Amino acid sequence: MWDKWMRRALDLAALAEGQTSPNPLVGAVVLDRNGRLVGEGFHARAGEPHAEVGALSQAGEAARGGTLVVTLEPCCHHGRTPPCSEAVIGAGIARVVVALKDPDPRVAGGGIAQLREAGVEVIADVLREAALEQNRVFLHRLKTGRPWGILKWAMSLDGRTALPNGLSQWITGPPARAWVHRLRADCDAVIVGGGTVRADNPLLTSRGQRRPEPLRVVLSRSLDLPEKAHLWNVDLAPTVVAHGPEAVGRALASGPERLPLEVCDPKALMEALASRGCNRVLWECGPELAAIALRQGCVQEVAAVVAPKLMGGMAARTPLGDLDIERMEDVPSGTLQQPVGIGDDWLLRFRPRACINSNR
Amino acid sequence: MWDKWMRRALDLAALAEGQTSPNPLVGAVVLDRNGRLVGEGFHARAGEPHAEVGALSQAGEAARGGTLVVTLEPCCHHGRTPPCSEAVIGAGIARVVVALKDPDPRVAGGGIAQLREAGVEVIADVLREAALEQNRVFLHRLKTGRPWGILKWAMSLDGRTALPNGLSQWITGPPARAWVHRLRADCDAVIVGGGTVRADNPLLTSRGQRRPEPLRVVLSRSLDLPEKAHLWNVDLAPTVVAHGPEAVGRALASGPERLPLEVCDPKALMEALASRGCNRVLWECGPELAAIALRQGCVQEVAAVVAPKLMGGMAARTPLGDLDIERMEDVPSGTLQQPVGIGDDWLLRFRPRACINSNR
Repeated sequence: MWDKWMRRALDLAALAEGQTSPNPLVGAVVLDRNGRLVGEGFHARAGEPHAEVGALSQAGEAARGGTLVVTLEPCCHHGRTPPCSEAVIGAGIARVVVALKDPDPRVAGGGIAQLREAGVEVIADVLREAALEQNRVFLHRLKTGRPWGILKWAMSLDGRTALPNGLSQWITGPPARAWVHRLRADCDAVIVGGGTVRADNPLLTSRGQRRPEPLRVVLSRSLDLPEKAHLWNVDLAPTVVAHGPEAVGRALASGPERLPLEVCDPKALMEALASRGCNRVLWECGPELAAIALRQGCVQEVAAVVAPKLMGGMAARTPLGDLDIERMEDVPSGTLQQPVGIGDDWLLRFRPRACINSNR
Repeated sequence: MWDKWMRRALDLAALAEGQTSPNPLVGAVVLDRNGRLVGEGFHARAGEPHAEVGALSQAGEAARGGTLVVTLEPCCHHGRTPPCSEAVIGAGIARVVVALKDPDPRVAGGGIAQLREAGVEVIADVLREAALEQNRVFLHRLKTGRPWGILKWAMSLDGRTALPNGLSQWITGPPARAWVHRLRADCDAVIVGGGTVRADNPLLTSRGQRRPEPLRVVLSRSLDLPEKAHLWNVDLAPTVVAHGPEAVGRALASGPERLPLEVCDPKALMEALASRGCNRVLWECGPELAAIALRQGCVQEVAAVVAPKLMGGMAARTPLGDLDIERMEDVPSGTLQQPVGIGDDWLLRFRPRACINSNR
């Protein structure tokens, strides 16, 4: 009987998709004692009020004796905002319906326990699967200490990302390129390697669809980077150049921030980005770096845009470098979702099975 | 007002999809003078009665004063069966509704003219676009003297058709492989190069879904073929080995028929297959031969089955060899149809624009 309201709370939560890092998506509705909707809220951004607080405040006195339906267990700790469990109890809520227990070790069932102690009825695990899916990005970071990685590429139907002579602009049409800008707006950081900076001199922004723009990250072993590049203009968007210990002494163009890593690899970079509050990052790199990211478990999703073109070429570039696989049964497999048309192109979204998320 | 009945006639015609070569698909319905359906027919196979004859014979006397709705202009020449125009006039039909004028030079409006001379009302071009699409294969052969070519491949999401070590069995799942058998059943011939025979020793049959099985064709410049191969067992299905003049003196395993070509290339092969009555052929070859077939205008459609897998590998095989393209604007483009799920895989059907059909 609570599914309908939980669905509504999930829909509210989704309004802030990609905007809440490092926090999860949360939505909440408050029903009065007669079951009528009297308040709605969602968590819009880190530092702003939690979903429950918004919904309770809208409900006001009508919350007394009513029900709070919330996608995530109310927090019980003092963070940037006071604990929600106390606010719920204070508002006189009689029943709390929760989709997901908060896996944050600071909460982890403590919110629910506190509510029950105060005599509030708690119904848990309502639409739990949908809530797990909605917060997969946040949950992945909590579990692994690394952001959820999306690897994006554009290719012709025959799996090419460049002509044999290296030309690659443009494979997909304007609508697909606009979609990539929106995808960036949903991510906290966009990552390329030094080769992409040298070859394409990209902007890597959401074209203003996210403010501030997602962090632009260059992972460069050598710091052999051009003196001038769009990425060095940090007025447009913040830029970080990550490198390993071998490049500590090397100079860098002024503008971007320097991020020294203990090892210059995707895994170390992802850990550094998680500790900066990134929940979701976008890999827009070349095939070699993409293959390493994949092998190090830094790719949770592939977004391949397939253009209605045939490019051919024995020497042409393809999306992924060597994965060092010898047997067909070792090939990383997963799920291809229903393709979505974008202009003349088709978006194929792929989720590798768990095995490829693990460190190998 | 005739669209409904023409749609029905097109549906009837489609029942023989892939079975009528070298003839077109044709469907027909007969309505009596009060507009009631009294006869239906379709052309099932070359040498069997034309669609009009079947529908008229079912209608019998009820056809008198009635309407014949037929997807293709009734023929006016004596072929393996007597001219349909005479049968229509003889049955006392008052009105004929036609989707498409027959582009066969032996008909080419002659059937319609003959009907009009006999006082039959003729309404032409009803659902003409749909009829053009339905008979695109037949019309393509009439226009070019070559069968409609479908290039099929199975690939991982990253566009690979084999691992770096050459292994390729299996990329797609059992439902997709069963779909390929059905695709073969819709084709008059299935073509591979010598390399595929040497590497995969394929069966290339429809697994009994078409009888007789489609012609299996090996295009081999050198005739450097294995002594034993499934393809040489012609009890299962007919096999032809096509080669150029340079291999005329070379021996061939017993079983397959020899097809000497003036030039050993896809274009010459397609012309030879058209003259054997093939309307539609399937290219199941490796990347080099596929690229030549494409460049010689022998591919009218690509059927790519994409598996939810990532195979990687700088040296791994991709679907197409070099197309010798230097500029992005010269890349063959076309239309990708709505992808269709087959098991865990997705079928992407692509039609190159006209430019790539022409000889270059």
